Amino acid sequence: MRRYSFHKGHGTKNDFIILDDSYGMHEMQREFIQVLTDRHSGIGADGVIRVVRAGSVRDWDGDPHLWFMDYYNADGSVAEMCGNGLRVFARHLINEQLVASGSFDVATRAGIKHVEISRFGLISTDIGAATVSDEAVTVDLGDQSWDATKVDVGNPHAVAFIADDADLDALDLHGAPTWQPTSAFPEGVNVEFIRVDAPGRLSMRVFERGVGETMSCGTGVVASVAAYRRRSGFDGPVEVAVPGGELSVTFDGDQARLTGPAVIVGRGEFWI
Amino acid sequence: MRRYSFHKGHGTKNDFIILDDSYGMHEMQREFIQVLTDRHSGIGADGVIRVVRAGSVRDWDGDPHLWFMDYYNADGSVAEMCGNGLRVFARHLINEQLVASGSFDVATRAGIKHVEISRFGLISTDIGAATVSDEAVTVDLGDQSWDATKVDVGNPHAVAFIADDADLDALDLHGAPTWQPTSAFPEGVNVEFIRVDAPGRLSMRVFERGVGETMSCGTGVVASVAAYRRRSGFDGPVEVAVPGGELSVTFDGDQARLTGPAVIVGRGEFWI
Repeated sequence: MRRYSFHKGHGTKNDFIILDDSYGMHEMQREFIQVLTDRHSGIGADGVIRVVRAGSVRDWDGDPHLWFMDYYNADGSVAEMCGNGLRVFARHLINEQLVASGSFDVATRAGIKHVEISRFGLISTDIGAATVSDEAVTVDLGDQSWDATKVDVGNPHAVAFIADDADLDALDLHGAPTWQPTSAFPEGVNVEFIRVDAPGRLSMRVFERGVGETMSCGTGVVASVAAYRRRSGFDGPVEVAVPGGELSVTFDGDQARLTGPAVIVGRGEFWI
Repeated sequence: MRRYSFHKGHGTKNDFIILDDSYGMHEMQREFIQVLTDRHSGIGADGVIRVVRAGSVRDWDGDPHLWFMDYYNADGSVAEMCGNGLRVFARHLINEQLVASGSFDVATRAGIKHVEISRFGLISTDIGAATVSDEAVTVDLGDQSWDATKVDVGNPHAVAFIADDADLDALDLHGAPTWQPTSAFPEGVNVEFIRVDAPGRLSMRVFERGVGETMSCGTGVVASVAAYRRRSGFDGPVEVAVPGGELSVTFDGDQARLTGPAVIVGRGEFWI
């Protein structure tokens, strides 16, 4: 039997297993990740984050002393970045005193991201550029249809605005939305449904491609705010209520910062 | 912050969090159980089992030295018994050397149950009586309908036999089955769909009342075998393939014994 030490945490109910591996001794096999993240026969999580010094990561040619966020989806596939995962990773570094202050850089496959502990212990992180397209797209769900905004946040998003007095909770997201023209998103798309509750306040639900509805999606929140800013001209911080909690987004030019809660709920040993 | 030590395990992918509490010091609050079993913001499980000496349990007037299986559903409600949970509980007692041999009694709200380590490390447990009714019932799902057998295993079951060459995997169990007459199960019912693959071999899927489709259900497996025995006259051990694995059932009169795998996958500390 082998034993793997882990921590578990979540950001707005997007949950992650964290594995400490400073010296890069642990190979992240696809099957291992699948077994670990299985919610019934393993520990269970949306993803796994290995904590490793950047200098131990092949192809990293930046500062070798940074902590590298080695992120994997539950199916074992590699992901470039995960907004909620980055906050949980940062919370773990702070908890375990692996960083010297509440303001630091971390290394990711999508480059260096800056992290800051914000008010009330919330964590604020760089997400990067959000690029809003002028291409007209529509999103369809059942017999309903909405005009949507196409946004690229490293991954593709279609942001559908529902009426200000519409019942967001009533949307049936068991089935996948479709979009027109289909050529707009040849590799699929994450679809956000947003309602403007007040200036600077949105409610959002999201259907992630290949997954289904989730309780939160960091890049989806950033895409939604980028689309809302374009449509409304609003220029301040925007708060977004998602099923798993609340996040806020600010922009500096086209560069987004995402702020929200992140908590470590426990630690343990996985036996395999 | 409080820290709770736990183990996690599963039996045919029915998964449980185990809390050691020999001296009965820990109050099992409903909210605590809900937070702990939440699959995103907690550790996540179908249920929680507190390991406590029977002598520390109010209203227990039997042998005080037995280990008591104090079982709770994920929503915090108390359950009398859980077949898969009992095996996982037993595996934990054996692993932690809390019992002196592989053959022992445990205390549950449904009385004393005998446990034995069986061949290949499988665990065999008493389930109790399965009472097959002669009342004619039918189960409906979408536009299909089946004759079903009503069985009581402490909780109510309707066992629907699908054709031997039918595609069990094709049944759409996203929606709840209904039954006729509705008066047959005034408090709802667990519905099993079974296919006879060979004499003594069944495949089963289950829709648990108030939950939906699950990967395994110990009492559902026992109910299915009781219905099959009544219908076929088959009298030997019966193996049942469920989505989470394989179980086998034997009868002594109307008393069922359930045998199957149980594994502890890790341990940890939950922080709250």
